[in-house]
Amino acid sequence: MYTLNNCLKQIESVDLEMAAHVRARVDQLIKPQGSMGTIEEIAVRLSGIMRTPFPRIEHTAVIVMCGDHGVCEEHVASAPQPVTLMQAINMTKGLTGIGALTKAFGSRLYTVDIGINSEKVPYDAIINRKIKYGTANMTQTAAMTRTEAIKALEVGIEMAHTAVENGAHLLGTGEMGIGNTTPSTAILSVLTGESPEVLTGMGANFPEHLIPHKAQVIKRALLRNTPDPSDALDVLSKVGGLDIAGMAGVMLGGAQLKVPVIIDGYISTVAALVACALEPKVKEYLFASHVSLEKGAALATERLGLKPFLDLNMRLGEGSGAIMAFNAFQAACAMNAHMITFEEAGFGVV
Amino acid sequence: MYTLNNCLKQIESVDLEMAAHVRARVDQLIKPQGSMGTIEEIAVRLSGIMRTPFPRIEHTAVIVMCGDHGVCEEHVASAPQPVTLMQAINMTKGLTGIGALTKAFGSRLYTVDIGINSEKVPYDAIINRKIKYGTANMTQTAAMTRTEAIKALEVGIEMAHTAVENGAHLLGTGEMGIGNTTPSTAILSVLTGESPEVLTGMGANFPEHLIPHKAQVIKRALLRNTPDPSDALDVLSKVGGLDIAGMAGVMLGGAQLKVPVIIDGYISTVAALVACALEPKVKEYLFASHVSLEKGAALATERLGLKPFLDLNMRLGEGSGAIMAFNAFQAACAMNAHMITFEEAGFGVV
Repeated sequence: MYTLNNCLKQIESVDLEMAAHVRARVDQLIKPQGSMGTIEEIAVRLSGIMRTPFPRIEHTAVIVMCGDHGVCEEHVASAPQPVTLMQAINMTKGLTGIGALTKAFGSRLYTVDIGINSEKVPYDAIINRKIKYGTANMTQTAAMTRTEAIKALEVGIEMAHTAVENGAHLLGTGEMGIGNTTPSTAILSVLTGESPEVLTGMGANFPEHLIPHKAQVIKRALLRNTPDPSDALDVLSKVGGLDIAGMAGVMLGGAQLKVPVIIDGYISTVAALVACALEPKVKEYLFASHVSLEKGAALATERLGLKPFLDLNMRLGEGSGAIMAFNAFQAACAMNAHMITFEEAGFGVV
Repeated sequence: MYTLNNCLKQIESVDLEMAAHVRARVDQLIKPQGSMGTIEEIAVRLSGIMRTPFPRIEHTAVIVMCGDHGVCEEHVASAPQPVTLMQAINMTKGLTGIGALTKAFGSRLYTVDIGINSEKVPYDAIINRKIKYGTANMTQTAAMTRTEAIKALEVGIEMAHTAVENGAHLLGTGEMGIGNTTPSTAILSVLTGESPEVLTGMGANFPEHLIPHKAQVIKRALLRNTPDPSDALDVLSKVGGLDIAGMAGVMLGGAQLKVPVIIDGYISTVAALVACALEPKVKEYLFASHVSLEKGAALATERLGLKPFLDLNMRLGEGSGAIMAFNAFQAACAMNAHMITFEEAGFGVV
């Protein structure tokens, strides 16, 4: 039903005429021109995306893709693999970072099992879209097949549709997957041509002296799989992750539905690079949120070409950075909805 | 009633023991240590300020000090002086930047006439604490007397008390005063010893080719008044503004009441420097919000020693940057209130 091909075919560019119309009005609002900076830019882009001069962001959602990574066998993460499941459960109870934040901000949380390596997932609170019990160890074989990667993208597309059907006007992307900075860095290395040694970072407090080992694991995975940099699906399936694919799918689905999608940190930015490689118009629907401290994040962000505006020193993932940006979108809508122009106020341009 | 002397006497340091207790607990929450960055720092500082491990920020307020500046006679602003009153009125109707944002975020707005140069201020919506009809032209004489500066500080102290008595747990500071980057830069120049030529910026879209003239006006004001850098009240009264003094007063009042106060942009940061010069402990209650684009802002922020975490390219004033930071404080409270420790979750440290 939610096929990748259909989705890609239906992604349209934003309405540039509407955006230009709103830009002109924003320049006439009762404030020094340009003085609301990024809020203005968001307002203009939102209008182009949502095809209205007065967009409304009343309901928001954060979609968290949870999946495990076979490469954890190579000791690339501090936390043991079962933590993925435990944190997914804790998240649904409002006990993790994003759990606490969605509760506080009244945002709806979708916790999706796209590949948790456990048979004991409680599917009362977690949405069951398991494709397999974690990816394969990418130093031995491809992390997943091309078909599995497509399925994972389609789970993301479906979840974007579900969230939007349930009322969301704005989507945040998140992930929970012990070890997932490793495949993220592998993807980034292939897509940018930069070496794993340069890109590999600490992830979730991985000890500094073991980072060269982590980089070597990534190198071995790349040598074993030789992903084709010009084929994003090949890269995603061979050295990616189910969680990363799911996030890229949410971005594709958001673009298809003309709904803005907020990128979180490092893993999410890499997922955005994959989504944009599949369909460059997706970028018109994406917004960066916060500066991630992960080592490769700066290059990933630069390559994507979207500027984060939050500098919160966060590196938690789960979508916790994305949700901190939601208020800027609400501010943009409020600016357009409530502020009046100099002409409406009855005085000359200040 | 709200005397400066009483206020200064009653400002106490934050509770460092409580802050250390909360730091220890934050380090045990189910996330990689330190991964919530600035949110963690805010949580720890809030606990020290509010004397509780579980602070709550349910109600917020933005206090906007509106006042005119006699130095506008020297042509240092693009907008004519009556715009101060018009924007103060528009603000109370929810039509300006901060008007729209307080409405959208459910924050209470206090619009205070501390020195608007008009007899036609509607006091149904604007709070009347007018000290005089704008400051004097500081190139000719002192902007105000020492007594007037103290009164303006006391208006701010009183407004902080009013907002807190009405339920606010967090205060944002804002201003509306055509020409007020000029006295702000004069104050900053005296307090830092840096020359007006280096510090003077575009304010609200003041034409670039006239900025040297604006710097010369500031220089003349400094030569005429020779404010004493070691006496903040002397600096504030001679080359300051009623709006700036009112904002400094809000910060003093917040500190007195053990309530956090969010700094906005350039003018607000200069007001914070004045408040901290009067009582250094005030700084423990202050938080920076956004990076202002105004030329002198970087030095003012550096001198204050608080790091802004929003990079929104804003330069509107009115408290519009401060309110964009409120969600970080709500996030900090949510983190403390909802997240559990590794021990409570029943697993080892990740």
